[in-house]
Amino acid sequence: MTHQRRAVVLLSGGLDSATTLAIAKAEGYELYALSFRYGQRHAIELAAAQVVAAQLAVEQHVIVDINLAQFGGSALTDDIEVPKGRTSDAMGHGIPVTYVPARNTVFLSLALAWAETLGAEDIFIGVNALDYSGYPDCRPAFIEAYERMARLATRAGVEGTQTLRIHTPLIQMTKSQIIATGLALGVNYATTSSCYDPSPGGAPCGACDSCLLRAKGFAELHASDPLIERFRAA
Amino acid sequence: MTHQRRAVVLLSGGLDSATTLAIAKAEGYELYALSFRYGQRHAIELAAAQVVAAQLAVEQHVIVDINLAQFGGSALTDDIEVPKGRTSDAMGHGIPVTYVPARNTVFLSLALAWAETLGAEDIFIGVNALDYSGYPDCRPAFIEAYERMARLATRAGVEGTQTLRIHTPLIQMTKSQIIATGLALGVNYATTSSCYDPSPGGAPCGACDSCLLRAKGFAELHASDPLIERFRAA
Repeated sequence: MTHQRRAVVLLSGGLDSATTLAIAKAEGYELYALSFRYGQRHAIELAAAQVVAAQLAVEQHVIVDINLAQFGGSALTDDIEVPKGRTSDAMGHGIPVTYVPARNTVFLSLALAWAETLGAEDIFIGVNALDYSGYPDCRPAFIEAYERMARLATRAGVEGTQTLRIHTPLIQMTKSQIIATGLALGVNYATTSSCYDPSPGGAPCGACDSCLLRAKGFAELHASDPLIERFRAA
Repeated sequence: MTHQRRAVVLLSGGLDSATTLAIAKAEGYELYALSFRYGQRHAIELAAAQVVAAQLAVEQHVIVDINLAQFGGSALTDDIEVPKGRTSDAMGHGIPVTYVPARNTVFLSLALAWAETLGAEDIFIGVNALDYSGYPDCRPAFIEAYERMARLATRAGVEGTQTLRIHTPLIQMTKSQIIATGLALGVNYATTSSCYDPSPGGAPCGACDSCLLRAKGFAELHASDPLIERFRAA
């Protein structure tokens, strides 16, 4: 009897991570989804993560509490205003105020801890280097350095049996390629949440960087966003 | 007016991290101490960390809650028995059951998040490669790979101004060298806690790997351990 390989998949509840989870499933992994309650203002994401995890029949979904707000320094956890209505050009320059210091480093490290406990050698993260070029911890050079470090960090690293991989299936995709991939895999985007500043009921603002990139992605496919449809119908 | 450089120092409340904090202070840094409530059985450590942080007049001491026990897999967070009475030779072989998966990776990542928020470029961690050769994440190769990754992970990494350093002043010291260094800097070891399996009142068991290494360190200096004196007096 062969064991199905296990993968830890970072799942925020957004469009990118939902697509990443579907890709890991299509590749045949047994899924262990990991989410964080990290002091983010848009906790509606976590409800979305739970729905997505259930839809994709993950083996286990763990939500780790970790209060990054104790350190301050980001629009997603502080009271800094989320920028609205920016052009693609403006988004492409500099590091957005929505950047959370070292967030992906922290999230990957907890994924690594769980992977080691599970005996998993595969971690999936839905980072994207094209649409979010402003985030330092979405760049390929960062992911490569992280993987190299992670291979030295664990028990298997000492024993010389380490083959840990950080999978970033979306890293070179445009938003429309990500959506097209997800639609082909049957992802239900109506239950994902991307907005940096949603209403208390979860309705997207339609004007933050994330909403604008998502709208552009669907528009390029000449498709309508089922999330928008859902809130229009409500 | 010149600003004092800030350093984030990982502080468990044990002998090694207390010494590391004193070294960072002696090097002139403004101190930001970081501790974790991570599901460890010996939470008495955190009380020790608070006392040490106060003694060394840190600028700020943050205790982050992070439930590593959700992942299982270690004697420090599970119900696996802590080994007692092992010889130095036995300690030197294999990875101890007290190893917590990816713990230093997780702790350093949170230190990095705080450092970025503070504008600090220096992180201190009291890892030791000699006495704890069994822990993968105490090895110099791991620390070097971590530093390289961390320089790519942050805003300054993108801007090309990154000079982040992971300081490991104890990494090549024996336990007696660590204690001698700390005594010279005035560290009060009576308020540190090293034991993997202390009594509810904080008395060390005297038989776990950590107690035995500590006792050997003091013995080599022909010094008595003020922590032992404290509990003998009580």
